[in-house]
Formats: sequence, structure tokens, C-alpha cells
Amino acid sequence: MSSTTSLNTARTQDLVDRFETIRSHSVSLIAGLSDADTTAQSMEDASPAKWHLAHTTWFFETFLLRDNVQDYKAFNEAYAYLFNSYYEAEGARHARPERGLLTRPSLQAVLNFRAHVDDAMAEAMDGFSEALLDLVELGLHHEQQHQELLLTDILHLFSRNPIGPALLEPKPRPAIIDTPLGWIEGVTGVQSIGHHGKDFAFDCEGPRHEVMLHPHAIADRPVTNGEWQRFIADDGYADPCHWLSDGWSWVQKQKIDAPLHWRERDGVTEEFTLQGWREVVLCAPVRHISLFEADAYASWANARLPTEAEWEVAAENGLPDIGNVWEWTGSAYRPYPGFRAAEGAVGEYNGKFMSGQFVLKGGSVATSPGHIRNSYRNFFYPHQRWQFSGLRLAKDI
Amino acid sequence: MSSTTSLNTARTQDLVDRFETIRSHSVSLIAGLSDADTTAQSMEDASPAKWHLAHTTWFFETFLLRDNVQDYKAFNEAYAYLFNSYYEAEGARHARPERGLLTRPSLQAVLNFRAHVDDAMAEAMDGFSEALLDLVELGLHHEQQHQELLLTDILHLFSRNPIGPALLEPKPRPAIIDTPLGWIEGVTGVQSIGHHGKDFAFDCEGPRHEVMLHPHAIADRPVTNGEWQRFIADDGYADPCHWLSDGWSWVQKQKIDAPLHWRERDGVTEEFTLQGWREVVLCAPVRHISLFEADAYASWANARLPTEAEWEVAAENGLPDIGNVWEWTGSAYRPYPGFRAAEGAVGEYNGKFMSGQFVLKGGSVATSPGHIRNSYRNFFYPHQRWQFSGLRLAKDI
Amino acid sequence: MSSTTSLNTARTQDLVDRFETIRSHSVSLIAGLSDADTTAQSMEDASPAKWHLAHTTWFFETFLLRDNVQDYKAFNEAYAYLFNSYYEAEGARHARPERGLLTRPSLQAVLNFRAHVDDAMAEAMDGFSEALLDLVELGLHHEQQHQELLLTDILHLFSRNPIGPALLEPKPRPAIIDTPLGWIEGVTGVQSIGHHGKDFAFDCEGPRHEVMLHPHAIADRPVTNGEWQRFIADDGYADPCHWLSDGWSWVQKQKIDAPLHWRERDGVTEEFTLQGWREVVLCAPVRHISLFEADAYASWANARLPTEAEWEVAAENGLPDIGNVWEWTGSAYRPYPGFRAAEGAVGEYNGKFMSGQFVLKGGSVATSPGHIRNSYRNFFYPHQRWQFSGLRLAKDI
Amino acid sequence: MSSTTSLNTARTQDLVDRFETIRSHSVSLIAGLSDADTTAQSMEDASPAKWHLAHTTWFFETFLLRDNVQDYKAFNEAYAYLFNSYYEAEGARHARPERGLLTRPSLQAVLNFRAHVDDAMAEAMDGFSEALLDLVELGLHHEQQHQELLLTDILHLFSRNPIGPALLEPKPRPAIIDTPLGWIEGVTGVQSIGHHGKDFAFDCEGPRHEVMLHPHAIADRPVTNGEWQRFIADDGYADPCHWLSDGWSWVQKQKIDAPLHWRERDGVTEEFTLQGWREVVLCAPVRHISLFEADAYASWANARLPTEAEWEVAAENGLPDIGNVWEWTGSAYRPYPGFRAAEGAVGEYNGKFMSGQFVLKGGSVATSPGHIRNSYRNFFYPHQRWQFSGLRLAKDI
Ligand SMILES: [Fe+3]
Ligand SMILES: [Fe+3]
Ligand SMILES: [Fe+3]
Ligand SMILES: [Fe+3]
Repeated sequence: MSSTTSLNTARTQDLVDRFETIRSHSVSLIAGLSDADTTAQSMEDASPAKWHLAHTTWFFETFLLRDNVQDYKAFNEAYAYLFNSYYEAEGARHARPERGLLTRPSLQAVLNFRAHVDDAMAEAMDGFSEALLDLVELGLHHEQQHQELLLTDILHLFSRNPIGPALLEPKPRPAIIDTPLGWIEGVTGVQSIGHHGKDFAFDCEGPRHEVMLHPHAIADRPVTNGEWQRFIADDGYADPCHWLSDGWSWVQKQKIDAPLHWRERDGVTEEFTLQGWREVVLCAPVRHISLFEADAYASWANARLPTEAEWEVAAENGLPDIGNVWEWTGSAYRPYPGFRAAEGAVGEYNGKFMSGQFVLKGGSVATSPGHIRNSYRNFFYPHQRWQFSGLRLAKDI
Repeated sequence: MSSTTSLNTARTQDLVDRFETIRSHSVSLIAGLSDADTTAQSMEDASPAKWHLAHTTWFFETFLLRDNVQDYKAFNEAYAYLFNSYYEAEGARHARPERGLLTRPSLQAVLNFRAHVDDAMAEAMDGFSEALLDLVELGLHHEQQHQELLLTDILHLFSRNPIGPALLEPKPRPAIIDTPLGWIEGVTGVQSIGHHGKDFAFDCEGPRHEVMLHPHAIADRPVTNGEWQRFIADDGYADPCHWLSDGWSWVQKQKIDAPLHWRERDGVTEEFTLQGWREVVLCAPVRHISLFEADAYASWANARLPTEAEWEVAAENGLPDIGNVWEWTGSAYRPYPGFRAAEGAVGEYNGKFMSGQFVLKGGSVATSPGHIRNSYRNFFYPHQRWQFSGLRLAKDI
Repeated sequence: MSSTTSLNTARTQDLVDRFETIRSHSVSLIAGLSDADTTAQSMEDASPAKWHLAHTTWFFETFLLRDNVQDYKAFNEAYAYLFNSYYEAEGARHARPERGLLTRPSLQAVLNFRAHVDDAMAEAMDGFSEALLDLVELGLHHEQQHQELLLTDILHLFSRNPIGPALLEPKPRPAIIDTPLGWIEGVTGVQSIGHHGKDFAFDCEGPRHEVMLHPHAIADRPVTNGEWQRFIADDGYADPCHWLSDGWSWVQKQKIDAPLHWRERDGVTEEFTLQGWREVVLCAPVRHISLFEADAYASWANARLPTEAEWEVAAENGLPDIGNVWEWTGSAYRPYPGFRAAEGAVGEYNGKFMSGQFVLKGGSVATSPGHIRNSYRNFFYPHQRWQFSGLRLAKDI
Repeated sequence: MSSTTSLNTARTQDLVDRFETIRSHSVSLIAGLSDADTTAQSMEDASPAKWHLAHTTWFFETFLLRDNVQDYKAFNEAYAYLFNSYYEAEGARHARPERGLLTRPSLQAVLNFRAHVDDAMAEAMDGFSEALLDLVELGLHHEQQHQELLLTDILHLFSRNPIGPALLEPKPRPAIIDTPLGWIEGVTGVQSIGHHGKDFAFDCEGPRHEVMLHPHAIADRPVTNGEWQRFIADDGYADPCHWLSDGWSWVQKQKIDAPLHWRERDGVTEEFTLQGWREVVLCAPVRHISLFEADAYASWANARLPTEAEWEVAAENGLPDIGNVWEWTGSAYRPYPGFRAAEGAVGEYNGKFMSGQFVLKGGSVATSPGHIRNSYRNFFYPHQRWQFSGLRLAKDI
């Protein structure tokens, strides 16, 4: 990959602007957090906020500056080891479960690292080739993904603290749903899904390809907290007939009987949020549920989860109420026909995770601005639920 | 479900005959095994041979005799608890990991249980309704599934014994493959898969439905042991770039570097078989590999696994060399469009296992006669490999 | 070690006789057990009965016949690997947790192994030197230890079987205790403990040495089931103030609320015994309790456990009711002053286990005839309780 | 416990002074540590520095101020839950393994908590009864224990950080030992151990009592790093014949082959210290070894560990080189004759830990000034080694 003087002024300028906006947004997320808050790791699935800030910076240093900018001097040689996430091609790295032990470098040192890289990028981007600009684009979307993870990881960390700290000032959670559930008949036959157009998309969102849709309907909104309480009241968590076998094992072993971050306090159901503990809003979408729970609820409701293709086609046709919670689909996260991972380390971005996980579509209140699109394929293991994950029903007709 | 006198003489007679044949075949499999051999459980995934013999009998006692035959007297009231596998609707049951502790009832007692149920079935089947005959049919296919598991479980048990006992007399393993790999171009566009016709199929094999196939080719034979040795020699097990992320974790944690049941002895690669330890046959299909290994091999070979739909359509069109090893596909085991599990306990047969597992197609040397069909959906977790599981390559074209 | 013709006729003849008696007794213990019963292993702490029969035979083959009898031909070369328990100096061995997978060799083969070794021993013993006769003596006491383990291991195996098989014919358990607890004042000052005299003792029972005893009293009988029920009724298992910290963790994690092998059935407390499930005898010594439970009971009773030295001195002075249950002491199993393990493999017999375990004194209903002596040091980890282990109280005065 | 006006001016004044000195010392230890450094928990055995600072303060608030000072207002009601360590009688508490998730309260908040309690204590101590002054004394010794733990826990945390931060400025580690090992013959017969005199001691250090000592000698200095390297070079970690059985399992499972905090770097053996990575000083006492390693070394050296009684009597008679490293003894941590734990929550201080642990004697470079005495009984599990733990040899003569 060589860096040549580029004349693509418009694209470059756009990227320079967005680079500044997106990078600043990451830092703005930790306003109000202490060095310690950004250092702790509450479980192996989660990462410290400080680590997110450093790792996204490592991406630009490693894939853009180190290899393509002459005389670029790494901020700190040790960071390549500390802040690589999972790129085997980039060599050894710090063990994931020990990220919370990195009390050093301090938050301030990480912010200095960010400034160092931001300065170098600002200087270098002007001369980047199209191929390098593609990598910058990737790095920005990568950063946006970590912005959402940073929020859900802080939420999880604070939820484990008996004094329940709040990241954000309290404000009312909007009661977005006050209508009975309606059904939208889906289009059937040969349809196309996958990314199209010239805008950015991750490699796994393509190639665009034809799928066959069978007769079905999809709900006009996600399932709400109030509906979920009826599932609980009807012993939904205690009746194996609704559950996938692995889900039932999980529910029993983990003693699960409610969404993550719920508690009962003096007869009131509360939810731990970025604003701290608050009473559950009945008409808001249920969130922090696993695929196992979503599937069990759908079974209890005599329905099923939509497939990824059904969801995406419906979204292209105007499905309402997208973007409040990630919506579990019934589709395993597997490659699209013709999918090929990119060469080199960035090829590890998506493809190697294509076993054991399910696709979620849409986006959530924690998703960064401009990061929601219909072809987006979010993916998690069926037991994971610390994201803002909910569900929308579908059924065969 | 009520039992009425049936006039369906032909079907009844066919089932009576097959009942006798299949039930006898199960018992013939343990010729040469001791009471102890049939009692031990070598890992949680496996079950004792004695348990297989009793559990398949429990199926007929529970779903046919107990509920539908007046005055039927259970052979032993305790067996309902001991030999239920996973049917939640049938109540509490003995914990799976403790099946190997059931030194009592003895093998002879289990054989007596079989005779008791066989006699009662022989007497009762004449009067069974169509619906009950359907259940008998299900019970026989269920028994054939357990016949294969009985063999792979005994193989696993004996493989853990340092003195390496053999179930069968030695006979040469046929060298079935002596041709270079060829590619068969697959049909594309809208195709149909899933069970059709009047013969028996499990619920998960339907409904038959249309799928969209994209340009691809599929290998004309499975991958061989000789080819697998080249993968090993090329450090295939040691290079993360070939592996799914979960697969790489598994390989490292379990220190996997060859198919299950392989060992090196005096410079010779040996395989543990039902005939004991034998030199690996280079031109025979590789077997006892996990989905993770199959996927890594395919990646190393610059190919991929076929999807279930590609495989099934190719098989319908005459794919060669099916039936020696189960072939991992790249498809997650998920429900077909319109799938609905049956009501009641037998509805737990397949549907509740539809998360986390991958589909295997075809059949193996251990599959019971007449139990191979193109729509058959075998399924296991991606790390499991004690079945006779291999792979066939596919690629986009 | 060389074998010379010995004139020690009396000792030799005694050992020949006892060899026959003790070896036969082992086989008599498994009357009524099937091949499968003697093969299964119910937990890692326990071993299969067949393994006990083979391992005790391996002792004689390895330490007497193999090394000292010219032309002795091993019964089966593989057995050295299969039936070594923990002697590092004797090389690699089969993993302990997998003993239950050895369905082969069969029980009959193991009995043939025993006959082969017994014949060779009968022929060879006449010519054994004193040093070899010492090893024979050790082997016989070793065999007696395994006789008790065989019984407790079978008891544990059968206890895990829902149909609760019985090893022995039912007979009433004697109600040995019908008196209120009395206290015996212990002797104080400098006293001696440890083996003395010419009879056999394990190395860890010596050297005999002086200890200092402080004012104390010791109970005139073990604690009974009836007394234990009062401990339970008083929430003894639920109040942390009685428990050692490690014991409290164990009770909570394992959800312990009664001795091992107890159950409540229709308002009656039952105990699983070698005669199957039977009502608990209130005036019999409580058994199948851990050191943690024994210590908690003593604390609840405002008493403590006796030290090993207090117990042994009291026993030498005629402590009543010894031999029904092993009695936990408050003494860690550590070497006596001047203790040195023997050279070579038999030196691994006791010394290497001297960390983390507590001493039990006395003997139980399962102890072999003639195997009880006051200097005997039985030892188990503080959480273990599948032996016939109970307690006797002591207190400072 | 009631607070009455006391005239014991001298004792009160002494305690007031020491209270100020010791409490200040704790805070001085974290000079140079960030909020994050004091928040992280590197393993379940260790605690965050912030937690140590808060927990020692909780002790005074709970046992002195809350119960005995009228109108005392708790600094924060939540702290009773957060900073109780293991006192069951004080109610529920935050789970130990989750201490590192308490990013709030911040270090500054904890320092404010300390100031709040220190002020209240300064005001209240004047009026404390003798009994309360005893509790103050206990609280100060408790705080000194935690001062050492704070240092070893920070050392462990920093050792897990690839960039190896240093707590202290580099200074040469004194080469204290340059003499060959000499042996001191111990006194024998009836001797006394345990605390005597009027100074403070923990309850477990008494009652003073007579013990019987047998002929033995004890080394005139601890084992050094240079000697330990010879143990390593002689395959000491690889030969099971030196090891306790539990130790051998531990060495193999944990892949132990050197003291904790050692590494090889370019042919040099380095040790992680509070000054960061430094070359090992050959003539300094080896440290960060477990009881298992100490015992194996002693066995390899044809010696043994001293008993606690041998060590204490030798120390009373002037054993040299005490106080550089804690010295493992061969004695289990069990109660002395006549020991009774105190009533109430403070009775949980020592007694409930008397199973499974071994006694260490002496003190280390990390022990607080004035906190070393011969009767002191430090105790850890035989696998633990993050303390400054070493060994001194003994032998029978
Ligand atoms: Fe990333
Ligand atoms: Fe089954
Ligand atoms: Fe043994
Ligand atoms: Fe404390």
C-alpha cells in the first residue's frame, strides 16, 4: 500500500471533518468518569472505557500511521501489545480478561495518545490514497462501534456497584409505544438483501444477493416492558416448553428470571440505566435480554423471531420504530454467498466470528449518530444481553 | 389419542416386520460387549450402550404402551425416571452426566425390559390407529439414530482405555478414494429442499420450501486422510489465520493437533476404530473432525464448506461418495420456513436444539441400513467430533 | 534387597496364613457385585471395586515378585500402568478420574490376576528375607486399607443410583448408645504417643515421642444421630458463627444441610447404608460427616475436637466405644518428630500426603478385622465425608 | 460495652499518638498511586489499596464509633456493606472477588472517610474505657496487617501489568547474606511458647503454654536466591520425589518453575519488586515462594522446615536474620491449648481461619515498624506466595 498525493479533495475533506467529529465524540462520552471508572473491567465480555479509547486509537496508529507515514514515531512501543484486541496477524497481545488490571497507562496518558495520533492523522490524511482513505473510513466506523460498547460496558460496570453510579443526568425515558401490537405482511418471493450503493459498509454486509422469502408477517413495533412483565407473570422463565434446550440450561444454571439490570424494590420493578436506577417504563421496548429469552418470549407469544432477510426487506420497506433497541433475529451470523474476508489483519474484522452467534438488526439508543443502516449485521452469542438488545415478533402466515 | 381397530393391514404388517428387524439389530450391536462395557459413560456427550438400549425402549413404553394400551403394566416404575433423555414434558429424569453410575439395572435386566416391551408391542400394534403407527415409525427412526450413537459412544469409551479393546473383528478398511479431487458445478437459482413424498422424515426436515442458490461448485468426494496430513504438515493446526475465532480458542485450550482418535506410534499415524488401533488409510475420508477443523481446512484449501441447501440439491442430482462420513455443512441448524414442532412431548424431539449447532448431511459407516436420505439433518456443536464426521469442499464460482 | 533362604519359619508361616486369609477376604467383599458394579467410579475420590482388587495385587507383583523373584512373569504388562495408584517412582499411570472407564480388563480377568499373583507369592514367600517379609506385611495392611475403601466406594456408588441397590442383606444396626454423654478427665503433662512394640505399623505412626498434654476432658462416647438432629433443628447448618471459614464456604457452595447419605422421606430421616435405605438409628453414632461439620458441631456444643495426642493417650487408657466410626481429631496430619519416609517407591506411602488433611482415629464398622490400633493415623481432607467418619467431643478444663 | 470517663491518661495518650502515626502511615503508602491504581484487584486473594484504606477505617467506625459514641453519624451508610471483609456477625457484605469493581467511592472519598473517622476518634478516645481502648489497640494492629497486604497487593497488581510500574524509587536491595549456612542447635524438652507480658497480641498468639521440643537444629539464616537457583538447576521443580502430593499437583497444573515475580530476560534472572523489575540479588533471601516450594526445597536439601515451636523458642534465644522475609514453618495453623475466640464479631478475627493454612513466623521488609514479635502467627494457604514469604531450614539431630 503506497501513499500518493491525492486529488480527491472532497472525500478527503469529508473524512478529515468526520475524523475530528467522531474522535471528539468518543472523548465526550467519558465526561464525568474518573480514571478508575475508565480502568475497571466488570466481566470478560466487557472492556474498560480507557481501553476502548486506546484501542480505537491503536487502529489508526497501526493500520494507517505505522505502515504508511514515513518517520511516524509510535507514541509508546508498549501500546501495540496492550491495545490490540484480537488481530492475530498483528502479533501477541494482552490477555482480554486482564484488561482491567491496566491501571497504567493512566486515562490522561491515553488521552495524550489520542492527541498524538489525531495530530499525525490530521497531517497525513491529505496525502492518503483512496485505499488508505478506505481504511480511515473503516477506522471511523470501528470507533463508532466501540462508542456503543463503551456505553454498555460502563453501564454494566456501574450496575455491579452497590451504590449504582449514574453516567448521565436523569431525564425521562420517552414512552414511545402506546399502541396495541400490529402486524405488517411481509413481501415474499425473491428479494435482495445486503449492502448496496457507494456508502461505507462492513465486509460482512455484502455481497448483496437474492434470497427467497416465504409468507410471513412482522410486528409493527418491538415488544415492550409491560408485555415482558406478562411473560414473567405467566411463569415464562419457569416453563421449559418455551425454551431452546441451551436456553433452558442457561436460565437454570444462571438463575435468570428477568432481563439484565432489572430488580424489584418495594414492589416496583426498576431498571439500571445510564441515569442510575429508575422505574421500568411499561410502554418502552424491553431491553437487555438474550437471544434465548427473546426466542422463549416469541414461543410463548405463539410467534417467532424474524429472519435477518425478513427484517431487512421489511426495513427497506419502512418498518416503524427501528433504532431504540437492537432486535434479535432468528438468523445465525454466517457469511453471505460470495463473502470473502479482506487480506491481512483487517480481514479478521468480521469473518472469523461467524460461528455460534446470532444477528441483531437496527440499532439502539446507544448507537452513535449516523451508524444505523438496514444492512448492518450486529452479532452476539445467544446468552449475551448486556447490549441494548430487545426483540420484534414475526410469524408465518 | 385413541386406539381403534385398523384396516391398514399393509402398513401395519410392514411396521411389525421392521419393528422386529430394527429392535433385533440394536441388540446385535452389543454382541461381544460385557455388562460393564455397556454401563460405562466416557464423557457427558456420550451415553452407555445399556442406556441406549433402555432409552429407545422407554420411548415405546411411554409414548405407545403406557398411554394407549389398556392394562399395560410398566416393566419397572423406576425406568421412566432412569431412561428419559431430555423430554421435559415427561417429568424429572436422571442427570445425564451420571448415566454411567447406573450399574443396576444390569444389562440382562435391560434386555428383559426390551423383551417385555417388544412382546407388548407385538400384541398391540395390530390395533393401532394411523396416528399411533406414526409414533411407532418415529420410534423406529429414533432407535436407528441411537444405534449409530451407541457405536460412536462405544468407540469413544474404548479409545480412552489404554489397552484399546475392539468391538469388531479386524477387516480391511476399504480404500475408497483414489482419484484427484474434482469439482461439480451446482445448479443455481430457485431450488427446493426439504423432505417430500410420503415416506417418513423427522419434523425438522420440512416443510419443503424454495431456496435461492448462488453460483458454486461442490467437490466430487470428501477430503481424505492423506489430504488432511498435508494440512497438518503445513502447520494447519498452528496458524490462526485459517480458523474461526471460537475454533482457534478451542484448538489452543484443548491442545488439538489432529483428528480425534489419531495417534503417532513409531512414525506411523494410527486411528482408533471399532476394530482397535489401525494404521490410517490415506485414501479414505478423514473422520472424527469438528466443524472448527472442517472450516479451517476449507479455508486453508482456499475453499469453503457447502451450505446445507447446496449439498442437498447436489445430492438430489447425484453427488458421489455419500454415506461414508457425515459431512459438515456451513449451515446453522435452524428451523425451515413454516416449521412447527409437534404438540406434546415428542415436539421436543428436534426443535429445541436449534441453537448453536451446525448441520451435517449424508451418513456414515455407522449409520443404520436404510437410515440415509438427502433431506436428513444431522446436527452437532461445532467442537464435537466423536461422530464419524468429515467434510466435502465447496467454492463460489 | 536380596532374597536369601530364611529360617524364620514361624513368621513366614504366619504371613503365609494371613496372606491367604486377607486376600480371600477382599474377594469375599464383592460377593453379589456384578462386573459393572465393580467397574464404575462414582467420583474422583472413589475408585472402582475392581480397581481396588487389582491395585492391591499390583502392590505384591511390583514390590515383591517383579523385583525379587527370578523368572517371575508379569500377568499382563499393561497392568503396571493401569493399577499403580500414585507412586511417582513407579512411572506413568492411568489418570485417577478415568478409572471408571476401564471396562476391560473384566472382573474375571482381575480375579485371574489375583490368582496368578497369589500362586506366585505362595511359592515365593518361603524364601523371602526379613526385609521382603516386611514388605509382605506392608502389602497386607495396604490391602486391608483398600478393603475399607472398597466398601465406602461401593456405598457411594450405590447411593447415587436412584434405585438404591444394597450390597448386604438387611440386618438391624445395633443401638449401641443409650446413655447420656459423660466426660473423662484426660491425663496431663508429658505423655508418649506413636507406635511402640514389635507389631506392624505404618511409618507415619512413629517415631514414638513425648508430647505435652494440657488439662482437658474427653467424651465417653461418640456423638449420636439423635444429637445431630438437634444440631440441625437448631439451625446448626445455617449459622456461620459455628463454622470454620472454609467450612462455611463449603456448606454454602455445596448446599450441605445434613450428613452425607441422609434424606427425608415422608417425615422420616433415612440413611443410605450397605443394606440400602434405612431409617436413621437415633442412638447410633452419627457418620458420614466432614471435619468441617464435626468442628461446627463441637463449637455449637460449646466443646471442641480432641487433639490426636489427647485421643491416643485416652485410648491407651481405655476410652470406651472405639471402632464404630472414625473420629475426627483437631490435629493436622503432619509428621511426627524424627519421621523419615522410607527410601524408594514405598516411601511415597504416607509422607507426601502430609498437607491439608486432618487425622482421624479409631476405626469403623467397615474397618477390616485386626486393623484397628490406637496409634493408627487415618487422614482425609476436611471436606471429605464418604468414609464412616464421626466425632467425639473434648473440652478444656 | 459502655464508655466511661477514664483516668488512664498515659495509655490513652499513647494510643492517641499511635493512632495518628499508624493511620498517617497507611495514607503515606499510596503516595504516587492514582485513583485507578488503588481501585484495581489483581486476583481474588488480593484487595484494592483503596479497599484496604476504607476497610481499616470501617473497623474503627463499626466497632468503636457506631456502638459507643453517642450521636456519631456514619460517613456513608453504604460503606458498612462495601467495606466489611468477612465478619458474618456484621451482616451482608460486598462479594470479595468484586472489590475491584468499586470505582466509586473514589480514592478522594475514601480519604475523606478516613478524615471523618479520624476526627471522631480523636474526639472520642479521651473518654474510652479500658475495654474500648483494647479495641482501639486491636484496630491499630489490624491496620498494620493491612499495610503489609496493601503493599503485597500493589506489587501483585503491578506485576501483572506488562509495563511493570514501580511504587517506589529504585534503591539497592541490601545483600544481607554472605556467609555459608550454619546450624544452631535448638533447646529441647519442655519449653513455653505463646504471647506473654502485657503488650498487645492477637488472641491466637495465646494462651502461652508448654510444648515438648525434640532434638533439632535450625539454620542461622534464611535460604537465599542463589541457593534457590541451585535447586532450580538441579531440576527441583521437575522431580516429584521432593514434593508433597498436593504441591506436585499444584506445580504441574500451574506450570510453576520459579518463585513468583521471577522472569528470565536475556540470560538474567529478574525479580519484580516495588521498585519494578530488577536483577535478582543472589545473597538475599529468596521470597515469594509457597509452602509447597519451601517444603520441596527443604526435602531436596535433606532437611525440613522448623516447627512453629522450634522457631519461636529459637527466636526467643536470639535467632539471627529475622524480619527480612516471612518464614514458612511446618506447623498447621491450629488453636493453642485453651484458646477461645472473643465474643461477638471481633471473635471472627482469627479463630475461624484455623483449617488448611500453615504458620509463618518473623516478618518481612513490608511489615510495618513495630509489628514484628516472636509470638506472631502469620498464616496462609500452602499454595499462596504473593507475600514476602521465604524459608529457613531445620533438621533433626
Ligand atoms: Fe475493535
Ligand atoms: Fe433419544
Ligand atoms: Fe494403595
Ligand atoms: Fe481486615
